Amino acid sequence: MPKMNPINFEQNKRLEKQINFIIEIDKVKNIIRKSLLFDGSRFENVAEHSWTISIMAVLLEEHANFKVDTGKVQFMLLIHDIVEADAGDTFLYSEDRKNAHTNEEKAAERIFGMLEPDQKKIFLDTWKEYEEGKTNEAKFALVFDRLQPIIQNYVNKGFTWKKHKVTYEQVVKENKHIKEGSEEIWSFVEHILQESVEKGYLTKNQSLEEEKK
Amino acid sequence: MPKMNPINFEQNKRLEKQINFIIEIDKVKNIIRKSLLFDGSRFENVAEHSWTISIMAVLLEEHANFKVDTGKVQFMLLIHDIVEADAGDTFLYSEDRKNAHTNEEKAAERIFGMLEPDQKKIFLDTWKEYEEGKTNEAKFALVFDRLQPIIQNYVNKGFTWKKHKVTYEQVVKENKHIKEGSEEIWSFVEHILQESVEKGYLTKNQSLEEEKK
Repeated sequence: MPKMNPINFEQNKRLEKQINFIIEIDKVKNIIRKSLLFDGSRFENVAEHSWTISIMAVLLEEHANFKVDTGKVQFMLLIHDIVEADAGDTFLYSEDRKNAHTNEEKAAERIFGMLEPDQKKIFLDTWKEYEEGKTNEAKFALVFDRLQPIIQNYVNKGFTWKKHKVTYEQVVKENKHIKEGSEEIWSFVEHILQESVEKGYLTKNQSLEEEKK
Repeated sequence: MPKMNPINFEQNKRLEKQINFIIEIDKVKNIIRKSLLFDGSRFENVAEHSWTISIMAVLLEEHANFKVDTGKVQFMLLIHDIVEADAGDTFLYSEDRKNAHTNEEKAAERIFGMLEPDQKKIFLDTWKEYEEGKTNEAKFALVFDRLQPIIQNYVNKGFTWKKHKVTYEQVVKENKHIKEGSEEIWSFVEHILQESVEKGYLTKNQSLEEEKK
């Protein structure tokens, strides 16, 4: 593909940096996730995922366990996976999640570092707040990062779970902190997972019959 | 492609409607715009466009001519093109723009109407506010809907302008209200357009020489 024509704007170097940052983060449109679009037609990219879960956070705000700053949650979700432009996407159920975090920290330094220091700080602090998951906004944002792939799997009859041999127990282990952000949404997830086991989209190590004993 | 497994959640029909709305709006990931990604590798879809300009609005907030509610601008931009799930994308320089608006109003009624009345009202009112372009938030949001394709054209050496024989005069006419949201960003756009004419990415009816007389 032909080389991009660079952006230069001598009159305002700060604005020039901002525009070049926007161009740089476009790379996540070519970072492909493990989940299918809801219609099953193809895999989703990181920008599309981020768009969907940002809208979910506003639409489903009423289900939060506590009051949240919705504007902040939206922004957190819009930028939460920008680091994947350098670090790539790591599957939730993969063993590489720890290495991934180190790569993502390097990526955050480089990419957010394209901005002037004051803006670098805002983006980096927001990303770290999300990653640490301690504030109400971070806990609520995480709900949607985890909820979307569960619904994608359910409507696509367990496609990604089956492909990667993910079990019910793994899904519960990696997603149960949804409850910390929203009890109501966790009830919905429990329902979806139960249905998925019954319909054969997701296998359970312990059978439903044994559990009832 | 196989039919999607539907979402039912008897325990909370309001949440069921919210989730089905999120699934419905995923259709815009298959609505393809006339502009290329910044790297020129392929055309952009509506979800990707919306993601980029929502981040731009936060990043470039300092350049607004007035104080804006950034959370509201973000939300406005996230949802501004959802109507295209039914109505499709209409090129800014096309003569179909008026018919497009009627189709978009029908689409807004249907799609936002999937939600309970209180939420339908919030989404519909926000979309109409954006379309009318009268409030500060709407004026500032519009800056980014227009700015992004100009930059996409510039970095891709006028690809879409050339393909559709768009002239400098048309670009100015359809984008000059960027100035109402941000004088600073309009200065940047003027610079980009001037460069585009000089580099041959955009043709001008009146030549630069004639203009200087």
